[in-house]
Amino acid sequence: MAEKVAVSHDVTKLVERIKDIKIAMMTTLEPDGSLHSRPMYTHEPEADGTLWFFTEQDSPKIDEVQQDRHVNLGYSKPQDNLYVSISGRARIVTDRAKIKELWTESLRTWFPKGSDDPNIALLRIDIDKGEYWDQPSNVLVHAFGY
Amino acid sequence: MAEKVAVSHDVTKLVERIKDIKIAMMTTLEPDGSLHSRPMYTHEPEADGTLWFFTEQDSPKIDEVQQDRHVNLGYSKPQDNLYVSISGRARIVTDRAKIKELWTESLRTWFPKGSDDPNIALLRIDIDKGEYWDQPSNVLVHAFGY
Ligand SMILES: Cc1cc2nc3c(=O)[nH]c(=O)nc-3n(C[C@H](O)[C@H](O)[C@H](O)COP(=O)(O)O)c2cc1C
Repeated sequence: MAEKVAVSHDVTKLVERIKDIKIAMMTTLEPDGSLHSRPMYTHEPEADGTLWFFTEQDSPKIDEVQQDRHVNLGYSKPQDNLYVSISGRARIVTDRAKIKELWTESLRTWFPKGSDDPNIALLRIDIDKGEYWDQPSNVLVHAFGY
Repeated sequence: MAEKVAVSHDVTKLVERIKDIKIAMMTTLEPDGSLHSRPMYTHEPEADGTLWFFTEQDSPKIDEVQQDRHVNLGYSKPQDNLYVSISGRARIVTDRAKIKELWTESLRTWFPKGSDDPNIALLRIDIDKGEYWDQPSNVLVHAFGY
């Protein structure tokens, strides 16, 4: 079915695909073994592929990634037949300077108190591997890995 | 952030949301602990919420669910601000009568040999719980559980 092309070691191609999708379904492992996902707004990726998300320090996903750092980010853009899977590991970052650096006013929808809200934390995702599908026929899957 | 409304025990509301999205990002656990997802076509849900997917018997996801049955199905419809997470457990079904019953010609994109292809298997997903977000503000999360 899906034939894989040679794995690319250039993360930029993978990360290009998610720039205009922005909302990921972030999947984490719950303590009871079930897999849980929720929509998350993706910040502008760094040149090396590092991804950043804002979240609340007291949210369940923080507990989940503290127990198991593995996450999957699933991005879908049905009208372009574009689907992206990113496997990575999450780290919780509470550095106030970094929070201020990444803050944008559009985040107020989720964080009405603004960037000074002491309950804000960042999730930093380091990508381990990824794939994307950009054809309805899925004859080709584009893969990325280190 | 996201305030949860009372958990509903009626799976139909959850399943209604995915009917016109159809393509799920299905996340499984890999043997090395990483989380892997891929786009999958969702068949018409059964009245009790059971979900069916076609796949190949020799595909990596079959090995993954044999080791750990937990899956997450993430559905995104960005233009409607609609996002759905379903946590469930997968079972591999190779019953030829069920394969023929669920077969539709649109599956030929992925299974060119048709429903007689001996390499076809079904993944039956039993839903444990789910949530959906249908507002840009995500003030409300709608939850389902047994
Ligand atoms: C829009 C779309 C829908 C797909 N639907 C299915 C499907 O229903 N069943 C399937 O086995 N693969 C489907 N694929 C291909 C899978 O995403 C994947 O590439 C393939 O099943 C191999 O997955 P695995 O290596 O993780 O097992 C679809 C791909 C796309 C782009």
